[in-house]
Amino acid sequence: MFLFKKNAEMHLLLNQLLIFIKKEYVMPNFDAVIKAYKRIEPFIHKTPILKSQLLNDKLGCSVFFKCENFQKSGTFKYRGATNALLNLSESDFNNGVATHSSGNHAGALAKAAKIHGTKAYIVMPNNAPQVKIDAVKNYNGEITFCESSLASRESTLKKLCNKKGATFIHPYDNYYVVAGQGTACLELASQIDEPDFIIAPVGGGGLLSGSSISAKNIWDNTKVIGAEPKNADDAQKSFRTGKLQPPNVPNTIADGLLTALSDLTFRHIKQNVSDILTVQEQNIPVAMKMIFQYLKIVIEPSSAVALGVILENREFFAGKQVAVIISGGNYSMKL
Amino acid sequence: MFLFKKNAEMHLLLNQLLIFIKKEYVMPNFDAVIKAYKRIEPFIHKTPILKSQLLNDKLGCSVFFKCENFQKSGTFKYRGATNALLNLSESDFNNGVATHSSGNHAGALAKAAKIHGTKAYIVMPNNAPQVKIDAVKNYNGEITFCESSLASRESTLKKLCNKKGATFIHPYDNYYVVAGQGTACLELASQIDEPDFIIAPVGGGGLLSGSSISAKNIWDNTKVIGAEPKNADDAQKSFRTGKLQPPNVPNTIADGLLTALSDLTFRHIKQNVSDILTVQEQNIPVAMKMIFQYLKIVIEPSSAVALGVILENREFFAGKQVAVIISGGNYSMKL
Repeated sequence: MFLFKKNAEMHLLLNQLLIFIKKEYVMPNFDAVIKAYKRIEPFIHKTPILKSQLLNDKLGCSVFFKCENFQKSGTFKYRGATNALLNLSESDFNNGVATHSSGNHAGALAKAAKIHGTKAYIVMPNNAPQVKIDAVKNYNGEITFCESSLASRESTLKKLCNKKGATFIHPYDNYYVVAGQGTACLELASQIDEPDFIIAPVGGGGLLSGSSISAKNIWDNTKVIGAEPKNADDAQKSFRTGKLQPPNVPNTIADGLLTALSDLTFRHIKQNVSDILTVQEQNIPVAMKMIFQYLKIVIEPSSAVALGVILENREFFAGKQVAVIISGGNYSMKL
Repeated sequence: MFLFKKNAEMHLLLNQLLIFIKKEYVMPNFDAVIKAYKRIEPFIHKTPILKSQLLNDKLGCSVFFKCENFQKSGTFKYRGATNALLNLSESDFNNGVATHSSGNHAGALAKAAKIHGTKAYIVMPNNAPQVKIDAVKNYNGEITFCESSLASRESTLKKLCNKKGATFIHPYDNYYVVAGQGTACLELASQIDEPDFIIAPVGGGGLLSGSSISAKNIWDNTKVIGAEPKNADDAQKSFRTGKLQPPNVPNTIADGLLTALSDLTFRHIKQNVSDILTVQEQNIPVAMKMIFQYLKIVIEPSSAVALGVILENREFFAGKQVAVIISGGNYSMKL
């Protein structure tokens, strides 16, 4: 342990090796999700289920919205971030955590670190929107700015981890993060009867793969469906070709769904998910407005994609019970 | 009863006489609120309380938001409308209810009538916004359009009541409506400890007077405060002069707060309310955006006025426990 602290470089390498081994041989299973829930339950919100009779009448099916926009830090990402943080050894915990992200994972990790009393080092591109910078600062996250290229982000992060001895918590390509994200669906199972479908948005696949682990182990007949923007349909392509596809150059307002699947999340998705359906760009704001109007909740565009899938496939979902995971509510509303 | 039905004009007169007598001699008291709650409880939502640590840190006090934006029809008005409807005699009930309104009371009354199986006749100005017309139509309300003047609304309503034998349910100058609105605060008392303050927006005063009846009878030290836009400050003027003031020509985005107090609501407010505080117009959208950002809920501008009062009186509320009644969420969001 002493050597670890003395040699941050070796520490990082061993950490990466551990992540590699876990990814290859220790896929998180339902037991990992249950353990994650026991670990994080005291620190998270049990988010409510909302439904609207008027909206159901319009859609022709019954939809139950699992409102992770009410989760701490405004997103389900708080579950995975907390689980990953609380799994660190004492010395790793004390050295803090790090990630490169300009999105919800950064805010969630910073908040979790603040609540539990350690440091979060966040690498952000120097063109990140002020609202995202403010979110991380609100939670006392320590921001290091870099160029906006992936290469610059990764090298800045690596240097930071070396310097601080901080552990890199990947937004989704991480055993404990995926297990933590699976707890939203585990919790959902205590709030509704078995649905015909669960729809979750898919970007990097943390929420979708975590949800699929829970759903497949809890219910017999529930089908898990991923929802993504047509303009960022790499997950659908990966799913349908059976081969991990690189991200296209996405052009969508669903800014939380720009990332591509990882090897870890893709394995779960191939195994447990029934299909990935896409949504035309113009239907994302339509779905968003329906949720504002009927549910009276603020959601981010990425969350609207799941309702978009129902809007574009009405016959398929007609008369069914559908659970939709609302992934987050970090959106700057206009009046 | 037979004569009543034969003579709708006399029916209406007797109804008005009854309202007059009740207003003069039978002010709704806490017992009326409790009876209202027993009556309407099976048909309404028990709305949640939301709070945000981050928002509290910014405000310097602890705020509990009673979220009536999640109430049926998207507003607390559903409580009063349901209570008034369920108090009608069988024959009056069967003849239906009527009101003139282009706002939340119309939607609430139409929905309550639909749910309980009678007709709602709504008089609306022919320049009413499409979104309000649609809301009433969604609930099968039967709309009669008229000129936008008050005289035209009243004469159209009178004719309609005569023709249909429908009972006029005033949006706030009504014993059962005020008692019904008081149930939001009664419910709140089962959800939080005694607060230092309750803040409710004030337009016609139904919510504020109903809340004040409950608060004064439940808690020993809680102060009830009304919140209204500076640009529609007739309630503050009435309160401070002790004499009912006519509405000024209001120019505010808080479209639910344009109406003036009635004799009935003013009596309660004089008796139970500590103060009425106003909010500068430019602070209403600021407060609205804070609620979107920190609570992730959609509210209408009228509801933001209560938070606006805290923003403009930070020292006064510093360190206090404050309950805010969010009156409704019927607002067309822009993206």
